[in-house]
Amino acid sequence: MDRDIREEIYETALAWVREAGVNIRNKINDPLVVDTKSNPNDLVTTMDKETESFFVSRIKEKYPTHSIVGEEGYGDKLTSMKGTVWIIDPIDGTMNFVHQKRNFAISIGIYHDGIGEIGIIYDVMADNMYHAKYKNGAYKNDVRLLALTKKSNIEEAIIGMNHFWLCENRLVDERIMQKFVKRIRGTRTYGSAALEFAFLAEGIIDGYLSMSLSPWDVAAGIVIVGEVGGGTTDINGLQLNMLEKNSILTCNMNIQDDILDYLKKAKK
Amino acid sequence: MDRDIREEIYETALAWVREAGVNIRNKINDPLVVDTKSNPNDLVTTMDKETESFFVSRIKEKYPTHSIVGEEGYGDKLTSMKGTVWIIDPIDGTMNFVHQKRNFAISIGIYHDGIGEIGIIYDVMADNMYHAKYKNGAYKNDVRLLALTKKSNIEEAIIGMNHFWLCENRLVDERIMQKFVKRIRGTRTYGSAALEFAFLAEGIIDGYLSMSLSPWDVAAGIVIVGEVGGGTTDINGLQLNMLEKNSILTCNMNIQDDILDYLKKAKK
Repeated sequence: MDRDIREEIYETALAWVREAGVNIRNKINDPLVVDTKSNPNDLVTTMDKETESFFVSRIKEKYPTHSIVGEEGYGDKLTSMKGTVWIIDPIDGTMNFVHQKRNFAISIGIYHDGIGEIGIIYDVMADNMYHAKYKNGAYKNDVRLLALTKKSNIEEAIIGMNHFWLCENRLVDERIMQKFVKRIRGTRTYGSAALEFAFLAEGIIDGYLSMSLSPWDVAAGIVIVGEVGGGTTDINGLQLNMLEKNSILTCNMNIQDDILDYLKKAKK
Repeated sequence: MDRDIREEIYETALAWVREAGVNIRNKINDPLVVDTKSNPNDLVTTMDKETESFFVSRIKEKYPTHSIVGEEGYGDKLTSMKGTVWIIDPIDGTMNFVHQKRNFAISIGIYHDGIGEIGIIYDVMADNMYHAKYKNGAYKNDVRLLALTKKSNIEEAIIGMNHFWLCENRLVDERIMQKFVKRIRGTRTYGSAALEFAFLAEGIIDGYLSMSLSPWDVAAGIVIVGEVGGGTTDINGLQLNMLEKNSILTCNMNIQDDILDYLKKAKK
């Protein structure tokens, strides 16, 4: 992507994210209409829809040639990653949004011909903006994030993961994952994929493991984590397909092989 | 406890906690000496010790007749809860303190003849003070916390718990706990017992389940949660013994029976 064009899109996207964030904060205590989607715990609110609709209308007006993929379906149906694609989760961590009124994020990844050029994750209530451009480093607000430390090992790692990895499931043998949990230093579960990517990027967790994430859950995070030297793959260690759901591992590269070894052993 | 005496102790304790918090924030980026205690993931730092020592010396000077129990052992060896007892965790969530430099708390419960009179949990980096006096309500900073909503049910509950409940363990059958996890709406793991009590009190989670907590992990939380109508018991539904370790459930009373049913079925 041309450098000047990217810079302009980047500044525009950041401004829109800030504007959407102000709107959400202003309405955070308004009564909510909560619906469910694929299952009773897959929540969606009017605010998810309103926020996605805001981005889609802005993008279509200013960048009519760009494609859009969004969680709530206001975007396009995509069959390739050709051209410039905005991948949007208007509220990542909707359960937190509904139950906690915090700990959720706006997540926007902007890809060009399949390359993640821009990643933005905005922790709306904490007012923390995580942002990165490809090969230009990652930032939390105005502070550049350091490269992930090289000295971490799996015994001292804190891994973000939910509890389903340890329940009977179709993907992995939960007994192997129980051994994994006993080997590492600790686990955390924050309830927002985007924020777990951001927390990895700032080094407060060392990896994040999640089943069946959609492209909008990971698109921004991949760019930001990549800029601090972390890596994101599917659980087989392969590159993600951004047109499909993926079960993913994103982590400090020092512990990637060790975690992939557990996943390989556990895989059904 | 006499009302005026309690008020004076309460104000004094809050002032000391704020002072200790400022000291921790001032030194948060200093190099840390980290040791381990019972196992390689049971961490302790010079800051845990310095903070506990600060409280112990202040209490001994101003309230020489009070007893003190603290995580780092600067207090007394207690054989009864008679009289006024300060139960102190100088840094609850030491792993978060070391790895994240946030998401840890100072926790102080003050008991008189076994009754929890004062609870203080201070989220040091977020500068959020959770505090309560017995039968006088609970507060987050200056805002009184609402009584926990009556309409919650287990299918919509978010429960704080770590991943060991789902690994083979001596306490419960992990397969029953896996069923529990699949029944509730979601799980969270924050890595600080005191903060999970505080989050329950403000209603952003609906319960917290933890194995083998020490009195200093729970003493303040019990008081604060009690003031918003929540209840804390051991995993058999019985009152905690504040002189010993306990595996605990603290939750909205609406879901207590349902959770205790799972624990009863799971108990080995």
